[in-house]
Amino acid sequence: MGSTEDLDYPQIIMQYSNGFLISKAMFTACELGVFDLLLESGKPLSSDAIAARLGASTIGVERLLDACVGLKLLAVEMTQEGALYRNTEISNIYLTKSSPKSQYHIMMYYSNTVYLCWQYLADAVREGRNQYERAFGISSIDPFGAMYRSDEEMLKFMAGQNSVWSICGRDVLAAFDLSPFTQIYDLGGGGGALAREYVSLYPNSTVTIYDLPKVVQVAKEQFVSPEEHQIAFHEGDFFIDSIPEAELYILSKILHDWDDDKCKQLLAKVYKACKPGGGVLLVESLLSEDKSGPVETQLYSMNMLVQTEGKERTAAEYSKLLGAAGFGVIQVKRTGKLYDAVLGRK
Amino acid sequence: MGSTEDLDYPQIIMQYSNGFLISKAMFTACELGVFDLLLESGKPLSSDAIAARLGASTIGVERLLDACVGLKLLAVEMTQEGALYRNTEISNIYLTKSSPKSQYHIMMYYSNTVYLCWQYLADAVREGRNQYERAFGISSIDPFGAMYRSDEEMLKFMAGQNSVWSICGRDVLAAFDLSPFTQIYDLGGGGGALAREYVSLYPNSTVTIYDLPKVVQVAKEQFVSPEEHQIAFHEGDFFIDSIPEAELYILSKILHDWDDDKCKQLLAKVYKACKPGGGVLLVESLLSEDKSGPVETQLYSMNMLVQTEGKERTAAEYSKLLGAAGFGVIQVKRTGKLYDAVLGRK
Repeated sequence: MGSTEDLDYPQIIMQYSNGFLISKAMFTACELGVFDLLLESGKPLSSDAIAARLGASTIGVERLLDACVGLKLLAVEMTQEGALYRNTEISNIYLTKSSPKSQYHIMMYYSNTVYLCWQYLADAVREGRNQYERAFGISSIDPFGAMYRSDEEMLKFMAGQNSVWSICGRDVLAAFDLSPFTQIYDLGGGGGALAREYVSLYPNSTVTIYDLPKVVQVAKEQFVSPEEHQIAFHEGDFFIDSIPEAELYILSKILHDWDDDKCKQLLAKVYKACKPGGGVLLVESLLSEDKSGPVETQLYSMNMLVQTEGKERTAAEYSKLLGAAGFGVIQVKRTGKLYDAVLGRK
Repeated sequence: MGSTEDLDYPQIIMQYSNGFLISKAMFTACELGVFDLLLESGKPLSSDAIAARLGASTIGVERLLDACVGLKLLAVEMTQEGALYRNTEISNIYLTKSSPKSQYHIMMYYSNTVYLCWQYLADAVREGRNQYERAFGISSIDPFGAMYRSDEEMLKFMAGQNSVWSICGRDVLAAFDLSPFTQIYDLGGGGGALAREYVSLYPNSTVTIYDLPKVVQVAKEQFVSPEEHQIAFHEGDFFIDSIPEAELYILSKILHDWDDDKCKQLLAKVYKACKPGGGVLLVESLLSEDKSGPVETQLYSMNMLVQTEGKERTAAEYSKLLGAAGFGVIQVKRTGKLYDAVLGRK
């Protein structure tokens, strides 16, 4: 229910309408390198100077900078030589490519892949399935075949996921004391950012990233250095190939890609491989049981419709899937950030 | 500058990232008729019932409804027969097609036209020009030729603008006491919603909508009934054809479509036609002089880049344009809503 003010003038509806303008303004400033340039320059710059350095039009760049000021991603100072722009602290930390907490790659994935898929949201809702055919002219039967349709797309996706773990990884791994486990398999561990957080938080552990051969190859080439001795790799398709024995399996943002049948199939296989006393850690964004939110997770569940065969679930739904596979004591920890943790023990 | 909390976890950046998901979820619920169905039904409905009535998939519709609950566009009640959904008050007023304050048409324009253009925002900023060629494969030399590229697009645009005036029209017209003026020309008055607000607020006035012949034809057929005697029409292109004498000219969201040269050319023509003692009312969203905002207007200025040859301007910039054309006493009134008013007198 809106407040009286909302009912006279629908501020909230205007905000929602403008949402895509805000997303795209931020994504575009990232893509064009505005924040990187202002970080490197070390001093405020005029829109003319920024346009010249970025090789972009002055009329376009000035407007983009001004919108970023309104969004508090840039600060402006009006001087005698005109307006001078600089990064805000939040942009330095999260929007520059070189920052350890950079969200640049996930933004590029959102801007150039997810944004296009969502153009067909109405079709996705009508048909109840993903929209790779309409968005990219490719078959939607195998969602990961579609998501990894080119090396470039796969790299963008992996880099994007790594961005997420740079800000959410530690919280989900610290949700439970996982120090008793030393042999870990990160199933679908991709670019390895979560594995890296794991070995940093639990120094006695070894994490093996189990992923498709082409993903492992790119992870080794681009994301994980051979000096990171506590991170190993295993090539395979966990739906088809065997899963080696370990003490703990991490399934982070895996189950949300698949329907209940496939989740049960995978969890049963994990249960069988798991050492007695071991467990499985699900890292997912949890929906509340009463459908009240979180709204981000509800939106991500729509994204699962548009891009995958899965959905976001409640803690009760994940517990039920774990129970069906044989896992016993099940604990749920909400982190207060985007991703939560569910631990099931064998 | 972010708060300390923002710096640990970039809530605001997540919100901006999710902006397009929020826009599209709301637009899609409108497009599929969710709010119309729930208004007509007069009682809460299950997601299965809604999906069946809309001819859409149950898995898609349930997720869309849940996202709308998170956005407070719907309310949900968990009953023994499952979840039942109903409109919130703000949705009944603003998101149903039949409401007098319906924003349905502007949302459809945003969702199916503007969203596509903004896919090419980075190109627009690089090149400093609109993106009709990339977005729709049509020439961008004549922006209104592009915007009115089909009868359907033109109708969508006109209906969209009418939605805007249903919530912002009265404020901009009441910003000044315009009762001394009785003969009004609304240049580019399109679907006539602002003209209708005008004659309702100033009952002694006659407003002539001056617009392109095909716009006038559609306005007569679809939007303004012959019984609305105080609204007249004049077919023409105000850049090419003559402008008849009147006491007041309204230019609402016209100057923002054009560069300074074209604005000066048009205003000079208006000044010449204007009766002594008459005036011109500019209705535009005003930027602040210090570049601090409003962020909505800054974003709309980017949209002008993507879709037109114009930009949003500050009050000082509009005053300068009016002054250059010969207009004297210039008054500015901010309404506190999206659109403001500037009055220039001859």
